[in-house]
Amino acid sequence: MASNDNLTAVLYGINDIRLEQRPIPVPKDDQVLLQMEVVGICGSDVHYLVNGQIGPFVVKDPMVIGHEASGTVVKCGKNVKSLKPGDKVAIEPGVPCRICAYCKSGDYHLCPDIFFCATPPDDGNLTRYYVHAADFCHKLPSNMDLEDGALMEPLSVGVHATKRGYVTVGDVVLILGAGPIGLVTLLSAKAMGASKIIITDILSVKLQKAKELGAHYTVKIEPSDKEDDIVAKIKELLGTEPNKTFDCSGAELCVRIALKVTKSKGIVVLVGMGKFEQTLPLSSAIIREVDIRGVFRYNNDYPTAIDMVASGKISVKPLITHHYKLEETEKAFQVAKTQEGNPIKILIHANPNWKPSA
Amino acid sequence: MASNDNLTAVLYGINDIRLEQRPIPVPKDDQVLLQMEVVGICGSDVHYLVNGQIGPFVVKDPMVIGHEASGTVVKCGKNVKSLKPGDKVAIEPGVPCRICAYCKSGDYHLCPDIFFCATPPDDGNLTRYYVHAADFCHKLPSNMDLEDGALMEPLSVGVHATKRGYVTVGDVVLILGAGPIGLVTLLSAKAMGASKIIITDILSVKLQKAKELGAHYTVKIEPSDKEDDIVAKIKELLGTEPNKTFDCSGAELCVRIALKVTKSKGIVVLVGMGKFEQTLPLSSAIIREVDIRGVFRYNNDYPTAIDMVASGKISVKPLITHHYKLEETEKAFQVAKTQEGNPIKILIHANPNWKPSA
Amino acid sequence: MASNDNLTAVLYGINDIRLEQRPIPVPKDDQVLLQMEVVGICGSDVHYLVNGQIGPFVVKDPMVIGHEASGTVVKCGKNVKSLKPGDKVAIEPGVPCRICAYCKSGDYHLCPDIFFCATPPDDGNLTRYYVHAADFCHKLPSNMDLEDGALMEPLSVGVHATKRGYVTVGDVVLILGAGPIGLVTLLSAKAMGASKIIITDILSVKLQKAKELGAHYTVKIEPSDKEDDIVAKIKELLGTEPNKTFDCSGAELCVRIALKVTKSKGIVVLVGMGKFEQTLPLSSAIIREVDIRGVFRYNNDYPTAIDMVASGKISVKPLITHHYKLEETEKAFQVAKTQEGNPIKILIHANPNWKPSA
Amino acid sequence: MASNDNLTAVLYGINDIRLEQRPIPVPKDDQVLLQMEVVGICGSDVHYLVNGQIGPFVVKDPMVIGHEASGTVVKCGKNVKSLKPGDKVAIEPGVPCRICAYCKSGDYHLCPDIFFCATPPDDGNLTRYYVHAADFCHKLPSNMDLEDGALMEPLSVGVHATKRGYVTVGDVVLILGAGPIGLVTLLSAKAMGASKIIITDILSVKLQKAKELGAHYTVKIEPSDKEDDIVAKIKELLGTEPNKTFDCSGAELCVRIALKVTKSKGIVVLVGMGKFEQTLPLSSAIIREVDIRGVFRYNNDYPTAIDMVASGKISVKPLITHHYKLEETEKAFQVAKTQEGNPIKILIHANPNWKPSA
Repeated sequence: MASNDNLTAVLYGINDIRLEQRPIPVPKDDQVLLQMEVVGICGSDVHYLVNGQIGPFVVKDPMVIGHEASGTVVKCGKNVKSLKPGDKVAIEPGVPCRICAYCKSGDYHLCPDIFFCATPPDDGNLTRYYVHAADFCHKLPSNMDLEDGALMEPLSVGVHATKRGYVTVGDVVLILGAGPIGLVTLLSAKAMGASKIIITDILSVKLQKAKELGAHYTVKIEPSDKEDDIVAKIKELLGTEPNKTFDCSGAELCVRIALKVTKSKGIVVLVGMGKFEQTLPLSSAIIREVDIRGVFRYNNDYPTAIDMVASGKISVKPLITHHYKLEETEKAFQVAKTQEGNPIKILIHANPNWKPSA
Repeated sequence: MASNDNLTAVLYGINDIRLEQRPIPVPKDDQVLLQMEVVGICGSDVHYLVNGQIGPFVVKDPMVIGHEASGTVVKCGKNVKSLKPGDKVAIEPGVPCRICAYCKSGDYHLCPDIFFCATPPDDGNLTRYYVHAADFCHKLPSNMDLEDGALMEPLSVGVHATKRGYVTVGDVVLILGAGPIGLVTLLSAKAMGASKIIITDILSVKLQKAKELGAHYTVKIEPSDKEDDIVAKIKELLGTEPNKTFDCSGAELCVRIALKVTKSKGIVVLVGMGKFEQTLPLSSAIIREVDIRGVFRYNNDYPTAIDMVASGKISVKPLITHHYKLEETEKAFQVAKTQEGNPIKILIHANPNWKPSA
Repeated sequence: MASNDNLTAVLYGINDIRLEQRPIPVPKDDQVLLQMEVVGICGSDVHYLVNGQIGPFVVKDPMVIGHEASGTVVKCGKNVKSLKPGDKVAIEPGVPCRICAYCKSGDYHLCPDIFFCATPPDDGNLTRYYVHAADFCHKLPSNMDLEDGALMEPLSVGVHATKRGYVTVGDVVLILGAGPIGLVTLLSAKAMGASKIIITDILSVKLQKAKELGAHYTVKIEPSDKEDDIVAKIKELLGTEPNKTFDCSGAELCVRIALKVTKSKGIVVLVGMGKFEQTLPLSSAIIREVDIRGVFRYNNDYPTAIDMVASGKISVKPLITHHYKLEETEKAFQVAKTQEGNPIKILIHANPNWKPSA
Repeated sequence: MASNDNLTAVLYGINDIRLEQRPIPVPKDDQVLLQMEVVGICGSDVHYLVNGQIGPFVVKDPMVIGHEASGTVVKCGKNVKSLKPGDKVAIEPGVPCRICAYCKSGDYHLCPDIFFCATPPDDGNLTRYYVHAADFCHKLPSNMDLEDGALMEPLSVGVHATKRGYVTVGDVVLILGAGPIGLVTLLSAKAMGASKIIITDILSVKLQKAKELGAHYTVKIEPSDKEDDIVAKIKELLGTEPNKTFDCSGAELCVRIALKVTKSKGIVVLVGMGKFEQTLPLSSAIIREVDIRGVFRYNNDYPTAIDMVASGKISVKPLITHHYKLEETEKAFQVAKTQEGNPIKILIHANPNWKPSA
């Protein structure tokens, strides 16, 4: 660390992101200091930027943004044995209390006292230097780079969702919504052995990308489409009903389709967060013993996500569409907001030495 | 069989039950002929009587009513080894195809070709003589009587629901609705080791019965009660949130309460069948990874239900409130319809030798 | 069926297989008549040939041999709706009673009254014409041929074993023994997303084949190797302990290695059948909560096996090393006995029209 | 704390326990200081006393003995919110690292860096004052006393074992060995709804106690009994095979019986630790898909154990046979060693104010 440069992206309020210098933090005994490298922009970041809140989480004080990140270890706290300076890591953004019943039973993501990057009031890590609990920094194997590392966060959402759906060989999978979360769910389902994957969206360009990533069938939903016609179309294309359905859209229409189309004794996983109140044909799933399961972030999923990529089962590289320097943060968020050029994953590079490839 | 008397209760249409003679059937190789003994009246029987249909199931042709039943074996088909004349049995009313994928994987209750007593167009067994697949006639142990036997049908619904909810030691259970299904769910939860059980209803008399059967807390819901106040009251009484919730009412309000009040990572089991379209705060459960699971009848649950009673864990006797002869079928259904005298289980005795106890 | 030719391979006693004409059977209502096509030779077939028994199963009367088979439907019983003449099928050789508690709960492979091809006293299907329960004849999709079909039997063993081991993404798998069962376990583990697979054997030629099929590491076990050295070598190659171990050898040494090397909280699946009495360091697994699970044949696994091949995840073709006509049965069994030329799967073609490819 | 008295029982070597004064420790931020109250003697304590080691764990330096304990909170570290001075607690003796993969996935008992009372080199808590992580001190409800609290440790072993065996309603349970661990397994199985429990031992006095605690059948094993005769006797008494078997003896004979007698698709849980090398008929369990599962201590089981007693399902009081003051530690261990008077649970009272009841 030759300099004291710790340029940091801070959300001050609605549509008000500022870059400012902050002191370089000092790691505690169980923490590491990280040179931040790559930070992806997530839909939730944009949501905080535009609305200032997500459900009960309100940005009241200035908050550092960013939570889909990778970094390089600069310094280790004295108790840290798992990492050493120079190690490249994917940063799992939630650090739980470690003492509550959820933490002790493996469901640390449900810890009510969890620290989580860029969920108010906790600061994120779109900054030059950042400290984090060492055990939530997952060392990248040599065949993965720092861009892969940043993408382990959204991929973990897909891994968690498909684990909640117990996806395995022989499954016929329906994914509703081909945005970033739909695509990581697709990649995870593929790695876990699903035999057929069908995906829906309202935009052709997204379905095209899904096809490149391995979807066997795509369904473009038009505004004029009737719910039961979409249900029929899905069944017709598959030649059967999907036994595992993932809603990655949050749209009420899609949740309704999920409940109706899923095979008896199958599972519907709701990954997307939609309206709080929804009018639903719940009994169409219930009397056929279709389970409905939600997801909240991820737990113990980073190692699986890394393994999926390291073992060559999938590649997350095709998800990356845009690159910016930390100094260009505002521009990056502008693209994320407007969706100009159909971005999937927009990456911000926090290391001042980063240079765009020719 | 000294006589040819086979008096049978046949539903001809809305509010039109007739008693008529039918030929005594002959068992096939894998069947037994049963002297029918005790047949309980189920809410669905009343529903067919009053509405002529339940969802897609419409009574088009005259249908024998009755499916909560016990009987005595009179004659065995030539392949039957598990039973002999004189055996007293609880009759599981669904006989599946045995060859589809659901049957082969243990989920025979989801068999699309299942025969099910008194679900149109299949005849029920409120009659003197009836034939049934021997392996779906469960022999009663010597310490259970034929009234217990008839109650194994509703109890199996409770067993299935609590198995779907994985109820075990340490669970804090909420049951919404204290009708017959709420009560059998209560009995099952108790037998499976639940530590605390709280139950709600709109009628005090039902809550009183639930208390007698082992509920630790009761909540009377008034028409003026606000949803969130009921949620708060449940938590306050328990000193925590229930981790397993069973809706046995089908009421939209109760489903809403279930989704809101259940502990993170808990399970909501929907046992009651309500309106097809419901407006629900689904995400309140989903983002806390509360699973929502439906139930459809039962499978492989009769042996457990019988074991619960035979081993002395629970008694179903307190559920029985009314007795009638087969000849009094219309009167019995009249009480079931009007709910006069707050009936829980109304039993009809099909054996002509039955005499009411003094 | 222009002719009455029903040449059939019958085991009369130790080392006494005879080809003889038998009457063409007539299908019952729920059965189909099959033109037998391809029948693989299994280790158990050879065992019966050489020893006349396997454990409690003794060949007392002449028994038709063969149970790894495919066929073409010639005629359907009157209740059969799932198949029609001309359909090509993989034949699941066990047909259970359908009425016992095991059958009803999905574990039909444990049915004590199961009929199983070529397990005495039940006849197998190395014959021209054979009848079988229609629902245990699995229709092959158009992109699979009859040789694939015959191989669904051993592959189902692998599928069942890996399901018993809950193999999924991120698993580090050890397979002890690279014979046919070790290889189908390898293929299944791969399809289910295992990240690393290491396999052992005493023959280099088998390890070579395993490598071609996707094993990441191989360990050749020499007679002089010490148990703990093999354990150490496996850990060293993997850089960790396997969390899922499959013994496909039945050798006491391999079971011992499995118990010692498997990661805490992992699973050891014992697929091979070894000596009845074995001296084992059981507590080395027990105090680390490593589960030990056996396998017996398969249940509900044929559809998954077919799906694995049909979806292109794996190919079973590389397992096929030898082809014979039905008339050459004795020669085929001779090769199976002597293992000359290192056979993996030896196929016998029962259709008289079959011709070896040039 | 008026005085500095911190009398402590220290194991110096084989058969060498000494009482000596130690400084009163100071709690860290997340710890509490406890006035120790009741400490039970465990078989492992006696083992260390007599042999100086258990497997790889060797007493090299003087070690405070004791780990089945309850205490009263005297002082809280500054971060402690869950407890306050005066609270009575059951002390879970293992405190894991909280950062390894086992800790994060809920299996903290397998943490390789766990601190565990009185497992060398970690000090136990048979002392006046002791500090412990607050979150591993479980507050006792008002209807449980400090003797119950100390017994939560062995009861947790039973809870863990029965959870590993998924004991539930309808289970037929065999327990081999009626020592303290056999008895807590019996109590747990009962609370979890087992319908029939059969238990074996070589001593009638132990079987008598098991009967008092709820065993339905007992089998006294004589030195001359043949293995297969015991197997036959168990089946005969039950009228069926047990589907869940717990070996709580560690005897090779009992493990052999467990493997042979357990019902197909059942579970054998090995709770006792026996000889490292055992000669076993493993395949008798394996080919019937009987799972073999070990147990190591417990995780997340204290709350369940406390709930079982607090809810009135079971009482642990009948297990208590002897009481001693801390000053009488040597005498207490003498009884534990000789088993004079058939002790089950011997309790040592560490609070100087304790007085034996009249």
